[in-house]
Amino acid sequence: MPHIDLPPNAPGILGPMTAYPRLAQHLNGLAQALLRGPSSLTPADRELIATSVSSGNECYFCTQSHAAVARELYGAGCSVVDELLDDAQTAPVPEKLRALLAVAEKVRQGGRQVSAADIDRARKVGADDEAIHDTVLIAAAFCMFNRYVDGLATWAPAQPEVYKKIGERLAIQGYMSKPSDE
Amino acid sequence: MPHIDLPPNAPGILGPMTAYPRLAQHLNGLAQALLRGPSSLTPADRELIATSVSSGNECYFCTQSHAAVARELYGAGCSVVDELLDDAQTAPVPEKLRALLAVAEKVRQGGRQVSAADIDRARKVGADDEAIHDTVLIAAAFCMFNRYVDGLATWAPAQPEVYKKIGERLAIQGYMSKPSDE
Repeated sequence: MPHIDLPPNAPGILGPMTAYPRLAQHLNGLAQALLRGPSSLTPADRELIATSVSSGNECYFCTQSHAAVARELYGAGCSVVDELLDDAQTAPVPEKLRALLAVAEKVRQGGRQVSAADIDRARKVGADDEAIHDTVLIAAAFCMFNRYVDGLATWAPAQPEVYKKIGERLAIQGYMSKPSDE
Repeated sequence: MPHIDLPPNAPGILGPMTAYPRLAQHLNGLAQALLRGPSSLTPADRELIATSVSSGNECYFCTQSHAAVARELYGAGCSVVDELLDDAQTAPVPEKLRALLAVAEKVRQGGRQVSAADIDRARKVGADDEAIHDTVLIAAAFCMFNRYVDGLATWAPAQPEVYKKIGERLAIQGYMSKPSDE
């Protein structure tokens, strides 16, 4: 049961976002700019970083939701999302994205964990300033979203088809859309 | 030296915010809504929670900046900010705020660390749903801001007078103001 009174039909972050729209507008605006706005990283790669950080933080709702978005954006036939969730070490991730995922993991552990060597490694395989910046802020932002979802003990659906539907909506409409069509 | 190219005269979060305004607008909007918008907690108490979380994350720039804002908002003669930073256990913090600071510390460690007992304790000393919600999101948001600042290795001024000036500006003008008057 959530720690505070939340709308019963809105799972995960949708609960507090529905109950506290004065904050939700900024959280959605940030997610849209960060995951869909201009960047040297594709939206699919940015969603994969979000998924990886959420998985590290053991946030079930965010992991399943963003994994579903990333699956949609990479397209059918690409199994990188599931391979990453299964075993990050052996997943077939390109070098640049692998180095950025390592930076994101350091950020997740704590901002001061990111070393010059982590950044050098990413630069050597093609990451530019914008990719490094966006990776750090995506990882930082999901340390917020994950804590918002789990710190309030929101409920998470168990059915994969719920996340598939969330993934389809967010992949097509982005983060400024409403969860339902009413 | 910061991990990416940032404007040299903008310390801490002001560096990436100046370089990446497309994201800064949402980060500032969130800070303004969260720390100054409607809440059952005073802006001073919300800034104290932000300071406490930033201190736990060892983010020097955020700790000093938000401590300075909190000092301004509590007013001269109130030493709670410095007593909290000196020793959180012995600082003269009212019961409700003490219980909410404990919730914030759990969120800082990880969203799943917040227990029903932590929330019950806060409710018994007067915290309502909004206070609990805002505490969780403030703590979560500063886990983001702190990681953004330190994950990019931004520089932090050492001089206390710099933070006093930041504190005065943010206490009076809030987070939608510009750092300088141009």
